[in-house]
Amino acid sequence: MDLVRELRGILSEEQVTNNPTVLEQHGKDESYHTPSLPDVVVFPKDRYDVINILKFANNYKIPVTPFGLGSSLEGHVIPYQGGISIDFQLMNKILEVRPNDLLVRVQPGVTRSQLNKELKKYGLFFSVDPGADATLGGMAATNASGTTAVRYGVMRDQVRDLEVVLADGRIIHTGGLAAKSSSGYHLTGLFVGSEGTLGVFTELTLRVYGIPEAIMAARANFPSVKNAVDAAVAIISVGIPVARIELVDARSIRQVNLHSKTDFPETPTLFLEFHGNEDGLKKDMESARELAMENGCRGFEFETDSKRRAQLWEARHHLAYAFLHGYPGKKMMTTDICVPLTELSGAVERARETIDQSGIHGGVLGHIGDGNFHTLLMIDPNDPEEMQIAEQINASLVEYALSRGGTCSGEHGVGVGKAKYQRKEHGEALDVMLSLKQTLDPNGILNPGKIFR
Amino acid sequence: MDLVRELRGILSEEQVTNNPTVLEQHGKDESYHTPSLPDVVVFPKDRYDVINILKFANNYKIPVTPFGLGSSLEGHVIPYQGGISIDFQLMNKILEVRPNDLLVRVQPGVTRSQLNKELKKYGLFFSVDPGADATLGGMAATNASGTTAVRYGVMRDQVRDLEVVLADGRIIHTGGLAAKSSSGYHLTGLFVGSEGTLGVFTELTLRVYGIPEAIMAARANFPSVKNAVDAAVAIISVGIPVARIELVDARSIRQVNLHSKTDFPETPTLFLEFHGNEDGLKKDMESARELAMENGCRGFEFETDSKRRAQLWEARHHLAYAFLHGYPGKKMMTTDICVPLTELSGAVERARETIDQSGIHGGVLGHIGDGNFHTLLMIDPNDPEEMQIAEQINASLVEYALSRGGTCSGEHGVGVGKAKYQRKEHGEALDVMLSLKQTLDPNGILNPGKIFR
Repeated sequence: MDLVRELRGILSEEQVTNNPTVLEQHGKDESYHTPSLPDVVVFPKDRYDVINILKFANNYKIPVTPFGLGSSLEGHVIPYQGGISIDFQLMNKILEVRPNDLLVRVQPGVTRSQLNKELKKYGLFFSVDPGADATLGGMAATNASGTTAVRYGVMRDQVRDLEVVLADGRIIHTGGLAAKSSSGYHLTGLFVGSEGTLGVFTELTLRVYGIPEAIMAARANFPSVKNAVDAAVAIISVGIPVARIELVDARSIRQVNLHSKTDFPETPTLFLEFHGNEDGLKKDMESARELAMENGCRGFEFETDSKRRAQLWEARHHLAYAFLHGYPGKKMMTTDICVPLTELSGAVERARETIDQSGIHGGVLGHIGDGNFHTLLMIDPNDPEEMQIAEQINASLVEYALSRGGTCSGEHGVGVGKAKYQRKEHGEALDVMLSLKQTLDPNGILNPGKIFR
Repeated sequence: MDLVRELRGILSEEQVTNNPTVLEQHGKDESYHTPSLPDVVVFPKDRYDVINILKFANNYKIPVTPFGLGSSLEGHVIPYQGGISIDFQLMNKILEVRPNDLLVRVQPGVTRSQLNKELKKYGLFFSVDPGADATLGGMAATNASGTTAVRYGVMRDQVRDLEVVLADGRIIHTGGLAAKSSSGYHLTGLFVGSEGTLGVFTELTLRVYGIPEAIMAARANFPSVKNAVDAAVAIISVGIPVARIELVDARSIRQVNLHSKTDFPETPTLFLEFHGNEDGLKKDMESARELAMENGCRGFEFETDSKRRAQLWEARHHLAYAFLHGYPGKKMMTTDICVPLTELSGAVERARETIDQSGIHGGVLGHIGDGNFHTLLMIDPNDPEEMQIAEQINASLVEYALSRGGTCSGEHGVGVGKAKYQRKEHGEALDVMLSLKQTLDPNGILNPGKIFR
């Protein structure tokens, strides 16, 4: 079949292409995973285009893979079985802002920075902040999070309703506008994080927040990772409503100093942020400082002014770039385990030791209020030995997390990279997931090969 | 088949009964819905008992209905097709408290007050507080909430993991101990709120919170419901982290005064609570007071001391009793719609007018930070005319909510009472729910007749 011609019969000519450059752009993501080309890329303009694409694909059993900006980290958007890549760049409108309902309705191709720019006019913000300026459709598909999950929750907590086109072209709404509901099954929660394997999103209704009256930021240096993590756990446990609490290890701070010619103390460092009213924040900050000091903190600085807050957090912000620029030609493999708080210190220390022993260069940083941390491993994907070592580090951390009740992925998702750990993590629940997949996508056209091997 | 004898072959003799009194206790809930008896009641002691019960029931296609304490409000536990009522009163152990992970693992028969009594020893509390002292299994099954959802979330937000026995006797874990995960489908969210129609819970891992450093309570009187709701919406919108914000209407305050010989001002009243540090609370309280005054507040009192806080909230606490005691012989039909914040004022006013015009006695109270409110309608279930009027009020409120993006049930669930609104609320998504139900329970043995008509 001439896929391009068939699809041009359904969409308009300029919405369908097999231009080699465009195919190549849709055959990879930001990860180390091997690229693989789609047969064709389509650019739907609205829900009706998506319905028609899916009806066609389902009829001819052609794989479809939704594509936002390609910032996934586990190969989610790579169409390993070819077929149709659905690029949402033309569906990038902010459809409605309901400031007094603290809700916004968007198309899936809207990026988080695009949304925040618009929301600022209303004194509002959208809380989820993964490293990349990802699309909101992609963020919902992977249940993304970032530095604010400890206070505001993950992507799943923000999605009030999804408009979803199912494999057979039916279109549904998974939720509504109410802040809570006990009416029927929680389809919203099921579709968020389903990575394009259960349906394709055409509209999202998201929860937003008022920009806080006051924001304070802090940076705290510790003699050891254990001290830093213990301080973080203490701060969380007593219920100080920290908005962000990030760990950066000494090796990573050194990388930032090398890259930016800065002289930050090269010790494990906590970066904190507090949102609220000024009086409350001062008290929270004081309590956090005390708990840090009780856990060996050797320096605790804080700032209120937005420019100086950014300076205080500079080492955290520049981290990924510092590694990428420091190792030209290498790619970054990022681990993503998440463990219960009491297991965090052990897990982070284990990670640091494992990296040091491996000979691979890399840093440890974490959203440690959630028990989630990443190792950034600098590797050459074309060097089989280096790849194998990095895979072993990844596997060893996942093993450690699973043995302690944790998960292989706190926020990046499964894609192809974490598919091999699904049986171990979920046991028989994986069969339940698979039966849901088969029920909603009997022909297996929706992003095949992802989540399930 | 002699069900009792067969089940006694699987369980022990004292775990199986068809004693008429026990059958009667398991044939009703706290609602106005018509009772209907099970054929037999069983009392499992552990997961293996539950597995064996379900394997047996599935083999012979016998309906099973899980039963906690019977405090459901939409007929959830009433076995309209007979069969086996599974009572979880022997599975009432708190299995593990992990204070530093802010987690607890319990059996489904544990009640919320039983859990909070234990947690208090650790300086912790469990946040979800429906009116009844329900079991945690039942609360998870209906995605219950209560007065604290505006700050801490609903039941679904607290459940980290469920151990679930499926219709065919397979047993799975839906989640883990990590605070967040992007690994696989969100089965926890799917099973929470599934009302016993997808599986039977045998263990729950729940999130708990540190008891806040300081608590303040307030009570504010308004000339109209609209003023009170507008004040509440203003307080929520600017992001004051209120822990509770409840509306009680004038008619309800009058009922409390009649019942308790008190002299609370008979005006629409907001009851508020704030959790945090003392400095922050004072500031939050001051901001809330200002917003209340800007919206016509005629009296704003607040208290810090726990005893005086309880007195301040007395009218709210005594509300349901005041109505039940004021109308002996009548039952309470409770509506449960939830709407976007901007639709709340109109919905509450509409509810009040509809009740006043109907001739039925009743009050309006609401968890209005979430947009959720109840009308308490005092009715005689044996009076067909009164029942019809109350059903019409319910239907009219649901219609109003659905036309504005809301839901027929904010927290009570569907059961049989809200099943007739599911198609209207969910459209084609109801077919998706039904296909998931058929996949996981092909013989239709799990709480048949609930959610789906």
